[in-house]
Amino acid sequence: MPQGQPLTVPDDGLSTRERREQPLLMVHTGDGKGKSTAAFGLAIRAWNQGWDIGVFQFVKSAKWRIGEQTVLERLGTLHQESGEGGPVEWHKMGAGWSWSRKAGDETDHAAEAAEGWAEVKRRIAAQTHDLLILDEFTYPMEWGWVDVEDVVDTLSQRPGRQFVVVTGRRAHPRLVEVSDLVTEMTKVKHQMDRGQKGQRGIEW
Amino acid sequence: MPQGQPLTVPDDGLSTRERREQPLLMVHTGDGKGKSTAAFGLAIRAWNQGWDIGVFQFVKSAKWRIGEQTVLERLGTLHQESGEGGPVEWHKMGAGWSWSRKAGDETDHAAEAAEGWAEVKRRIAAQTHDLLILDEFTYPMEWGWVDVEDVVDTLSQRPGRQFVVVTGRRAHPRLVEVSDLVTEMTKVKHQMDRGQKGQRGIEW
Repeated sequence: MPQGQPLTVPDDGLSTRERREQPLLMVHTGDGKGKSTAAFGLAIRAWNQGWDIGVFQFVKSAKWRIGEQTVLERLGTLHQESGEGGPVEWHKMGAGWSWSRKAGDETDHAAEAAEGWAEVKRRIAAQTHDLLILDEFTYPMEWGWVDVEDVVDTLSQRPGRQFVVVTGRRAHPRLVEVSDLVTEMTKVKHQMDRGQKGQRGIEW
Repeated sequence: MPQGQPLTVPDDGLSTRERREQPLLMVHTGDGKGKSTAAFGLAIRAWNQGWDIGVFQFVKSAKWRIGEQTVLERLGTLHQESGEGGPVEWHKMGAGWSWSRKAGDETDHAAEAAEGWAEVKRRIAAQTHDLLILDEFTYPMEWGWVDVEDVVDTLSQRPGRQFVVVTGRRAHPRLVEVSDLVTEMTKVKHQMDRGQKGQRGIEW
């Protein structure tokens, strides 16, 4: 449980309420499990608050759906049908982003990642979503597919009240620097070390 | 993304398929964020597979609902209405467990935690659920409200195919020892250090 007790009172001239409303830039990194899962868990919570949610999966091949996509899109449908919760959009790389009319060249992951980031930038400028999840986005940053300083500037200077979660291993130090909340998921013990493979319901 | 490549092939006489079907005992521990959120994220995924989900929140006062409870119970209702996904039960301490007819003595958390564990034991013996989330259960273990060896024996020798996730800080070494997957969420950076308080949609 969050204790909600700040360790220090910042000298930023903001009231508690103003500070409470400050949008967060969050990073889930580390070699352990739960980085994306915790991000999608946040999305569930945000949906319940009626937030507009945009998920962008920067994975090389994401033809398959994960359970969270099915469920979050189902929740988005519930919102359309009954007004419950908030709207949900889920986009992923792999064979062209869903907003693109281009067929998508699956072999050019770098271009596809750059296209995804350009769209995220447009949406951040337009304040389209309340919560943006940039899943596995540390890798395009690591591999030079997107410009790190452009990402850092865009995310840290985003207008309005937009929450952002970036997931993936080896988060860039500059991203960590500008983020409000960085959690490292560390593997203490993993069944795959014993030779057990991924299984339905747990891994996807 | 899980790579799904075991580092070793175990000498346990099981086929890959048999090993894949082995139910996991998982622990989310550490001082960072995301322990419970990742567990509820797993529940979302499990729901999508049609699993029967039981959540047991061992928190001292849980009169308030968190967003995940609303959403998971909503998904449970969807299951009842349309057969989508799986059934969901969500129980929490705080003023008597929901299955109990007793009014509940909110001041005796130790007795309430013990009662909760006794019920979980019965359900594990009866194989009631496919996924059990014992949220914040490390604390009753730490505080001696439940017997550690009883917990370790019950969880490690559970019958059938029951997945279990235990969350909370300072997981007992004996629990770690018998678990298949232990993840430590470590706080790298947290906005509360800067004096920012918890906020709706993120903390609850």
